[in-house]
Amino acid sequence: MANVDLQRERQSATISCEDFAEWWAGGRDALRERRALEKLFLEDTEFVDPQHTSLLSHKELYEYTIAKACKFLTKLRAWHATKARSNDKAQQQSAIASLHDFRMLLSGPLGTALFQQSFPLRLHFAMFLPALLGQSTEEQQREWLDRAWRMDGIIGTYAQTELGHGTFIRGLETRADYDVQREEFVLNTPTLTAYKWWPGGLGQAASMVIIMAQLYIKGKHYGLHPFLVRIRNAETHLPEPGVDVGEIGPKMGVNGVNNGFLGLKDVRIPRTQMLMKNAQVRANGRFVKGPEPLLTYGTMVFVRVMIVRDVSFGLLQAATIATRYSAVRRQSPIAPDQPEPQILDYTTQQAKLFPQIAKGIFFRIAADVIWIKYQSVIKELDAGERRNLPELHALSCSLKAVCSSEAEEGVEILRKSCGGHGYLSSSNFPQIYGAVTAACTYEGENTVLLLQTARFLIKQYVDGLKRKVLPSSVTYLRNAARPKWSTVIEMKTLVRLLELAATENIRLAFEHQRQQRKVEKSEQAAANKAGIRLTHAATLHGRAFLARIALEEAQKFCKEMKPILAEVLMQLAELFILEFCLTSLGDILLAFPLNARQVDEMKTRYERLLADLRPNAVAVVDGFDFDDRVLGSTLGCYDGRVYERLMEEARKSPLNQATVNETFETHLKPLMQGKL
Amino acid sequence: MANVDLQRERQSATISCEDFAEWWAGGRDALRERRALEKLFLEDTEFVDPQHTSLLSHKELYEYTIAKACKFLTKLRAWHATKARSNDKAQQQSAIASLHDFRMLLSGPLGTALFQQSFPLRLHFAMFLPALLGQSTEEQQREWLDRAWRMDGIIGTYAQTELGHGTFIRGLETRADYDVQREEFVLNTPTLTAYKWWPGGLGQAASMVIIMAQLYIKGKHYGLHPFLVRIRNAETHLPEPGVDVGEIGPKMGVNGVNNGFLGLKDVRIPRTQMLMKNAQVRANGRFVKGPEPLLTYGTMVFVRVMIVRDVSFGLLQAATIATRYSAVRRQSPIAPDQPEPQILDYTTQQAKLFPQIAKGIFFRIAADVIWIKYQSVIKELDAGERRNLPELHALSCSLKAVCSSEAEEGVEILRKSCGGHGYLSSSNFPQIYGAVTAACTYEGENTVLLLQTARFLIKQYVDGLKRKVLPSSVTYLRNAARPKWSTVIEMKTLVRLLELAATENIRLAFEHQRQQRKVEKSEQAAANKAGIRLTHAATLHGRAFLARIALEEAQKFCKEMKPILAEVLMQLAELFILEFCLTSLGDILLAFPLNARQVDEMKTRYERLLADLRPNAVAVVDGFDFDDRVLGSTLGCYDGRVYERLMEEARKSPLNQATVNETFETHLKPLMQGKL
Repeated sequence: MANVDLQRERQSATISCEDFAEWWAGGRDALRERRALEKLFLEDTEFVDPQHTSLLSHKELYEYTIAKACKFLTKLRAWHATKARSNDKAQQQSAIASLHDFRMLLSGPLGTALFQQSFPLRLHFAMFLPALLGQSTEEQQREWLDRAWRMDGIIGTYAQTELGHGTFIRGLETRADYDVQREEFVLNTPTLTAYKWWPGGLGQAASMVIIMAQLYIKGKHYGLHPFLVRIRNAETHLPEPGVDVGEIGPKMGVNGVNNGFLGLKDVRIPRTQMLMKNAQVRANGRFVKGPEPLLTYGTMVFVRVMIVRDVSFGLLQAATIATRYSAVRRQSPIAPDQPEPQILDYTTQQAKLFPQIAKGIFFRIAADVIWIKYQSVIKELDAGERRNLPELHALSCSLKAVCSSEAEEGVEILRKSCGGHGYLSSSNFPQIYGAVTAACTYEGENTVLLLQTARFLIKQYVDGLKRKVLPSSVTYLRNAARPKWSTVIEMKTLVRLLELAATENIRLAFEHQRQQRKVEKSEQAAANKAGIRLTHAATLHGRAFLARIALEEAQKFCKEMKPILAEVLMQLAELFILEFCLTSLGDILLAFPLNARQVDEMKTRYERLLADLRPNAVAVVDGFDFDDRVLGSTLGCYDGRVYERLMEEARKSPLNQATVNETFETHLKPLMQGKL
Repeated sequence: MANVDLQRERQSATISCEDFAEWWAGGRDALRERRALEKLFLEDTEFVDPQHTSLLSHKELYEYTIAKACKFLTKLRAWHATKARSNDKAQQQSAIASLHDFRMLLSGPLGTALFQQSFPLRLHFAMFLPALLGQSTEEQQREWLDRAWRMDGIIGTYAQTELGHGTFIRGLETRADYDVQREEFVLNTPTLTAYKWWPGGLGQAASMVIIMAQLYIKGKHYGLHPFLVRIRNAETHLPEPGVDVGEIGPKMGVNGVNNGFLGLKDVRIPRTQMLMKNAQVRANGRFVKGPEPLLTYGTMVFVRVMIVRDVSFGLLQAATIATRYSAVRRQSPIAPDQPEPQILDYTTQQAKLFPQIAKGIFFRIAADVIWIKYQSVIKELDAGERRNLPELHALSCSLKAVCSSEAEEGVEILRKSCGGHGYLSSSNFPQIYGAVTAACTYEGENTVLLLQTARFLIKQYVDGLKRKVLPSSVTYLRNAARPKWSTVIEMKTLVRLLELAATENIRLAFEHQRQQRKVEKSEQAAANKAGIRLTHAATLHGRAFLARIALEEAQKFCKEMKPILAEVLMQLAELFILEFCLTSLGDILLAFPLNARQVDEMKTRYERLLADLRPNAVAVVDGFDFDDRVLGSTLGCYDGRVYERLMEEARKSPLNQATVNETFETHLKPLMQGKL
């Protein structure tokens, strides 16, 4: 029986959660389609875990995950084939479209529901195939793509980072020496620090790897290039001669992914297995440079937009769990003569939950905006126009850094808002946090990305001083308008305050760097000295951009929504913007002198928004339409049977299957009898 | 061979790490003694883990931990007995002193080194014995204490929280009904939410439990009292009739601790097993109230001071690992023509490391100060004087909340400062974080503690308005002095800024609550509406208090130190205070109008301190004198063999013991052949 408090929440909401769900899913059809697909897999008992995966040993988890993943891929392919047949024959899906479909399915709600800790074969679709597609010549594609798509003797992954090298890819040590006589490349990881380290699926699963290595021809260095290398025999799966491969051990999260290490000693591949779309090595050893691989930047942008979507997804999973739990949990009478209220009624609890809901929503909306921008820039690049690439790159850097960092903090706030129960693996918070926090580090460590963004911003700032036209995301740097404070706080005023704070910090960082230049030997050394201020300025820029997008997009959406839903969306947008203003208050005050009364108005407005959102909190999180399996949490299920599920899950623990654990006889009893 | 960069760091430091170590350990003798004890256990190969505990299944971890803990306790008792014999016969250690010794050993560096994820029997010493000692009559102590100390048929734990009840202890549902006829208590957990939930060691290990339950005599309620209940048979360890006991499953951290649940159905115990120090039930059912149990508040203070020490310890473990790694790791040339520098040379990296070192140091020093205050208040309580209890209680609440919250954030900053490698379990960061973040929730959830602190602060603020004399930690509320900004920023000015910010926020919270009172039905409802401002004010108070303590204590210590060491300590104290100022900048600006130049001076001073501390960073963390096993990290060992250890640890993974995992034949191959 469903929890009565949760039922009441749903009855008393002013919005329809189905309306919200349709909007959030991008329309009624999209919602229906996704639900049907999830049903197909999630109602299949083959895919129900007999016990929580956190109970397994590291080795058991790998083996269990492989078995499940193989079943899943088999079923997914069958479904995909049916779907393809049902499409118009003339419009047979291209390999690219199919691949895109697969990637989305594997990392979206369905993939999450089935593999809360991810799985090794995901990298085959998420990294190996896209790299093969993007970096091979047409001839190479003809040779490999179809086989790889069918996994015919090929389970692939992509290997770039090394034990001693991550961010600075020019420092990678793995090398590929061209042997003109035999027309082969000889691959080596000459030192311990050159070992490839981290690639998902590499440990025990992968049999082929696209390896980034320094190309040498006759001892001369030609930069970093991708090489397709078989590391395990297609028949026996035994490591090929010269290959030293294994997995790197347990981690803070995503433990299903089988991250691995790889050492190579004189491993030979034919010349044709260098992926040669961007540069070629001819049989005679002549190196032919291709056009500047602008699309590689494009790929980085693509990956970072995906990360923003992913962390938004994780944050909303966590927000849904915590909001539902807060409606079910009762604690501490507010006044002594009253019953214990739902903790959702505490203002401090609302301040933990609702800003995270707003962040999850507007992070994804920002990702959608960048995604559209990305597609238009890609088109421009195809036409040889690269003007908008730097802005897009900077935006993707700062959004990836700011959103992942806010999301990881948000997930933890939400976990702790559920008290001790949030600490249990069965709440799924630990796993969600593990996945979200990892995004702060991979695909460009956040501090490094903020420094890159700052470099762009400083350049724009200088251009602005020279009265040049600036890209749209930084036109605010030249906007001298001071915000007007009317009787009601306007959202555009709040956005402007954030922009002023960003502008002032960019200016100060620029000045500081210029000061440092007088004592430091190089521009870079001066930039290092200004590092704290640069990253701070880039963060403020990211927040200002996100705030502006939230305002503009919310206004657009509202035009096509039922008024009552539009009202809630605007409340969320305003909360989102105010949250940034209040956490950047010091910077705002330095940029624009608000008085105490104005600041108090902002805080009062913030509290008002929390109260306004309170009645619709459950309806909104219901509207994300997460299946219970997607949430994977004893605390967050739709029916609110929190305590029942906590107990049911606990009783499944293998330790609870025996009345007395055998260590009692072997250890505890001898200890108590002083016989040990 | 030790890492050359780390060697060079040690040679070029201006301070002696041994000097620092002696100071930090509290003197040369204390340092020597601790080292000898650690050597005794850590050089014993019996206690070396054959594989990382994160590789084990949940059940394997329990069984492995029990076996190791039993060996450890046996050896520890033998050592303790020898030590006791070697003491002057006339001064035989009391049970209390012995217990204190044991608690310190089990939760200090030694316990951490041996059990990075804690162990089930720790609660016997950390909670069961102290509760027995503190809440039994002398007669009860005679009956139970010696047996419990010897673990003669008794492995104990303490059970308070329930599945549906944590913070609000008056809401606990477990009940003990007195049966006058049989002179017994009948214990029941009448609902699912009444199940005891969380106690460490309860799952499979404990045989006796001190249970907090609502006392009923002839149907009348007499409040919450402790009852000593046997839950497992001393001989067979089988659950006693009416007992439903088990463990609650894996968690985010401290997975060795065997947290459990407990349901009771008509479980009977003799009347004499209610612990009756504070209240008695006579045989005829008469309830006799004891004196107000002030010491119970004292115990809460004690536990919270211990938590501040624990989180400081965890933060410094993490800071040591990250600082050493940052000296070994090289990445990204600062200028293009240069080699990759130690990442310790990046200003942004220093800003991640050094403030955490400073926090770890001054959190522990603050705990030491409160500890002394605690002892004097306990003496006063014995003499019937309770005047200083509310202040002590409020201080312990705010310090526990502020320090645990800062420490958990700090550990994560440090982990991420090590890039991807920090995410590996073998770095030990995930386990350290798991332990530290738990402290934000247990023994008083942080938001609740801040609200309690705020209640105290509001009362003091009102008293201040009435010109009453305030307790020393809040005299600043009546201090009208405005700080003077001299040409050099003085530390006392910075502390004063934090106090002004706290004062202003307490004032605003008070005003806001008063405003709310006009619309809300009760004082409590108004306080709920002011919750965000109250917790914020309490946080600022905690920071201001910590800053003042840091300044005062650092100055005291410096008088007895070598000048060069004193200089470094003052640098750390100033960094500590400045860090708080910069993170509270908005609040400071609202309380005291600093201009842009003054703020810039603060930032510049902060950067200067980072640069000044740079040469001694490794020497300082060496000075915490953590044994490698205490750190438990591939990244943080004294010799700096980071990459070698990462690889060695990875090679131990059971998955890496077979060349081909058997799921290749059973699953991957059939998948690739389309035969699944």
